[in-house]
Amino acid sequence: MARSKKKLKVIPLGGLQEIGKNITAFEYGDEIIVVDCGLAFPEDDMLGVDLVIPDVTYLVKNKEKVRGIILTHAHEDHIGAIPYVVRDLNVPIFGTRLTLGLLGNKLVEHGLKDKVHMQTVTQGQSITLGAFEIEFIRTTHSIADTVALAIRTPVGLIVHTADFKIDYTPIESEAIDLARFAQLGSEGVLLLMCDSTNAERKGFTMSERTVGDSYEHIFVGAHGRRILVATFSSNVHRIQQIVNASVKFNRKVVFCGRSMLNVVDVATELGYLNIPGNTVIDVNDLDKYPPDRLTLIMTGSQGEPMSALTRIATSDHRKVEIMKGDIVILSANPIPGNEKYVFKVIDELFKKGADVIYEALALEDVHVSGHACQEELKVIHSLVKPQFFMPVHGEYRHLQQHANLAQKLGMPEENIFISENGRVLEMTAGSAKLGGTVVSGRVLVDGLGVGDVGSIVLRDRKLLSQDGLIVVVITCDKESGGILSGPDIISRGFVYVRESENIMDGARDIVKKSLLKIEPNGRKNWSGMKSLIREELRDYIFDKLKRRPVILPIIMEI
Amino acid sequence: MARSKKKLKVIPLGGLQEIGKNITAFEYGDEIIVVDCGLAFPEDDMLGVDLVIPDVTYLVKNKEKVRGIILTHAHEDHIGAIPYVVRDLNVPIFGTRLTLGLLGNKLVEHGLKDKVHMQTVTQGQSITLGAFEIEFIRTTHSIADTVALAIRTPVGLIVHTADFKIDYTPIESEAIDLARFAQLGSEGVLLLMCDSTNAERKGFTMSERTVGDSYEHIFVGAHGRRILVATFSSNVHRIQQIVNASVKFNRKVVFCGRSMLNVVDVATELGYLNIPGNTVIDVNDLDKYPPDRLTLIMTGSQGEPMSALTRIATSDHRKVEIMKGDIVILSANPIPGNEKYVFKVIDELFKKGADVIYEALALEDVHVSGHACQEELKVIHSLVKPQFFMPVHGEYRHLQQHANLAQKLGMPEENIFISENGRVLEMTAGSAKLGGTVVSGRVLVDGLGVGDVGSIVLRDRKLLSQDGLIVVVITCDKESGGILSGPDIISRGFVYVRESENIMDGARDIVKKSLLKIEPNGRKNWSGMKSLIREELRDYIFDKLKRRPVILPIIMEI
Repeated sequence: MARSKKKLKVIPLGGLQEIGKNITAFEYGDEIIVVDCGLAFPEDDMLGVDLVIPDVTYLVKNKEKVRGIILTHAHEDHIGAIPYVVRDLNVPIFGTRLTLGLLGNKLVEHGLKDKVHMQTVTQGQSITLGAFEIEFIRTTHSIADTVALAIRTPVGLIVHTADFKIDYTPIESEAIDLARFAQLGSEGVLLLMCDSTNAERKGFTMSERTVGDSYEHIFVGAHGRRILVATFSSNVHRIQQIVNASVKFNRKVVFCGRSMLNVVDVATELGYLNIPGNTVIDVNDLDKYPPDRLTLIMTGSQGEPMSALTRIATSDHRKVEIMKGDIVILSANPIPGNEKYVFKVIDELFKKGADVIYEALALEDVHVSGHACQEELKVIHSLVKPQFFMPVHGEYRHLQQHANLAQKLGMPEENIFISENGRVLEMTAGSAKLGGTVVSGRVLVDGLGVGDVGSIVLRDRKLLSQDGLIVVVITCDKESGGILSGPDIISRGFVYVRESENIMDGARDIVKKSLLKIEPNGRKNWSGMKSLIREELRDYIFDKLKRRPVILPIIMEI
Repeated sequence: MARSKKKLKVIPLGGLQEIGKNITAFEYGDEIIVVDCGLAFPEDDMLGVDLVIPDVTYLVKNKEKVRGIILTHAHEDHIGAIPYVVRDLNVPIFGTRLTLGLLGNKLVEHGLKDKVHMQTVTQGQSITLGAFEIEFIRTTHSIADTVALAIRTPVGLIVHTADFKIDYTPIESEAIDLARFAQLGSEGVLLLMCDSTNAERKGFTMSERTVGDSYEHIFVGAHGRRILVATFSSNVHRIQQIVNASVKFNRKVVFCGRSMLNVVDVATELGYLNIPGNTVIDVNDLDKYPPDRLTLIMTGSQGEPMSALTRIATSDHRKVEIMKGDIVILSANPIPGNEKYVFKVIDELFKKGADVIYEALALEDVHVSGHACQEELKVIHSLVKPQFFMPVHGEYRHLQQHANLAQKLGMPEENIFISENGRVLEMTAGSAKLGGTVVSGRVLVDGLGVGDVGSIVLRDRKLLSQDGLIVVVITCDKESGGILSGPDIISRGFVYVRESENIMDGARDIVKKSLLKIEPNGRKNWSGMKSLIREELRDYIFDKLKRRPVILPIIMEI
């Protein structure tokens, strides 16, 4: 009976109110399981940062409790932080074949492949980890082999959809297992955690198959011309459809971009991509075929600067250049924040004579979302009929819209929890309430440094980026405070010095005058001297230019 | 007869392939007229830059030829560069009342009001400037008192639409003068220059009046709640409609945000805004009215950090805070690049308990574009029937789509000129061809500095923003090259030093070792010493952290 008094703690450590870096812990007594472990890409104000991973201090502190990490699918925002997290939290990792195949690739790159224990599961299977029984439910999403989770806990059943859409006609795989959601609903579900990414959007997300129809239409009209398609490398079904259209219209396929080649290798080896022999040719053999025998499939649908499409558009690719008449399809919508990059690539492609097909033209359905819209969410809520509901995966406005939707379907407002990262939802067999918080947040990765770039470093980078830097160096006599050399003034990112000598001369005069204000023996108060120089120089420059460069006074003593 | 051999030169100096900063010169013999003179906002990579204005070197060099600047409407991207340009190019400026009223405001802020000669024109009027006769044609756009131009030149008639949409039912003004476009077309038009902003979009842009219907619908349902609306301050007709709905539903109106207050003052004074007495109250009197008697109209529809809405959303506004139940309407779509800022504001508003109505929800038509879509462009092309066509106002892809549209309407490809800034279109009575180029480009404004931030300064700011800075200072004996003090190492924006002392200690050792490699008398080659320090330190840090901070070695000599 002692056990039944324990509470289940549901702890999102990432993925709420910030897209990306999804990770949730479920804790019961001495046992914790973790669902997903993703990364995010840096926001505009995280200057110089390469990646953002979740802060897993809470899990590391409790690592003897952690039974394993369960992955729902192989997108970066669900698996990307694993190579960083396993260094301090080396527990078994569970996922479907494609998910672990792509994770394996990533672990090899980090030199960690042999150090991590991975266990493959299949859609429909269940595993037991301590007090938890986890069932992997077949769903559909913009990557193959995706699962939702039914987690049986001592206090009740939790359904976690992860990212999903309801696709009745997916490519090379079975439809989402809606019947299983219905069975679980009949059984009684304590808590539903459900994808909110598209909760703002009315209606249904179209089937992946509609994209295939658009391709056929484009391929039919592409007489004598090459076709280039940029898409997410992880969208195996999308790639399959482009390959299918190419085979049908007697085109050879060339893959471009490192991550595209990687994913195609893994997905082909594991049987998720079926490409007939003699279809794929090497990029070096492009010249051997006429334009209407060629399809190029590549990375770069988000205008990423180093991607294949961006390099091709800017004539910076070693093997491929745009020919007049090329048809370029951007088979993805810009993620918010990427619009300008994508538009620049489109402009360059048009300038070089390509015909570009992209979303804004509304010409063809060359992309569909991987996430459920409002009508699909209603289907899941109606089948699962949970007692409590926590919208997940989304910014605050998405969670709010999803909560509104649940209320419209009849769920009492007090049973809905719009939570935040680190906040504990405490559950018993018939109750749920938000409790305290655990350490959570984001850790910045810059080069090899994980967590050594914090708010002070970012603030300095921001300041440096705005108006640059002025360094003032003086050498002083340690004993007398007399000035032996300087002041020397050096600037970077401030003004173009050759054209602004007056300003720099003026700055030197200001520093000299400041120094005269101090009695020679007062000069041994280095920090006072530095403050004075900083203030007087700051005022002078603001007055002259209305700018605020970083001012760095350095006093050398001899 | 000598005159007829002269060519007309049409020279776009801004506004092609880069949104904003619209400016075009028309030159015939010894006479130049300029149409518009706008600014652009900095792109992401223009760190620390406040504004971007066009390079008018060509006009300044030929300033004795310039007869005047003609303004089509008062948007920043058409008038914003005037205060900077008139310092070197003080010529008469022509525009309609509202356009010059808002420009006047701007000139007062720059202390230039008395130095500039402005001459008001009315829709329908014509003026003569040297060889040019300019007619101002009534059009509709997202700001009142907008005109298109018919420019009669010795070689033929040019129609320049500027920014426009075809609105048959505008607010408080007459519809676009389509009949005049038709008359000009019958007369024979040599060249059409036409707005391409929405050339990607099918169909028609809805009338501004549809927005009014949406407001009424929202106001009807807003029992007991305040209504806050964010929109562009320059959209006088939009503001009029919000005021109308407020009056109808017995709400007082509060205006927030400096530019909103400015524009409302000017537009009211000139009669473009009609606000019944006792409608507007001061923000300090908010507390005197119940929520359902209040409408707040404010800046911030683009999530601008210092705007009224952003301050209110982040609890940083001195007078207004969000109350649970407030209805907030974002009556504008995010301009590409602003999405993330807008979404952050929406998230904050939801968190504070507001109901936010924004475009993605597709609930109400709370915004319509000010630019013509494809079907409207077809109307203009069909009425004007020009011999030659130059798409203007847009990125390359917009110009390209507009050119495609003209071709579909039967214009031969060789009569269409997708040009670029600085490129001269040479025209005679029956011919047009692209000729040479004149100086053009963009000038960056940072604080009070105009043009002193160039590519080197921006490159340095970029480098500093990525991985920060390391300064190495050494004091050496001028005679012997002996090291008297240092090396001292100071960093900013690189690592958080207290947590990374090892790295900094290591860096100091590396510099010391580098110095040992140099014979004492070799140390007088300061630039060689600096290079060595920079290289060895760079390699050390890249090896340790895979980062590339800016390294700044400074040698003081005594």
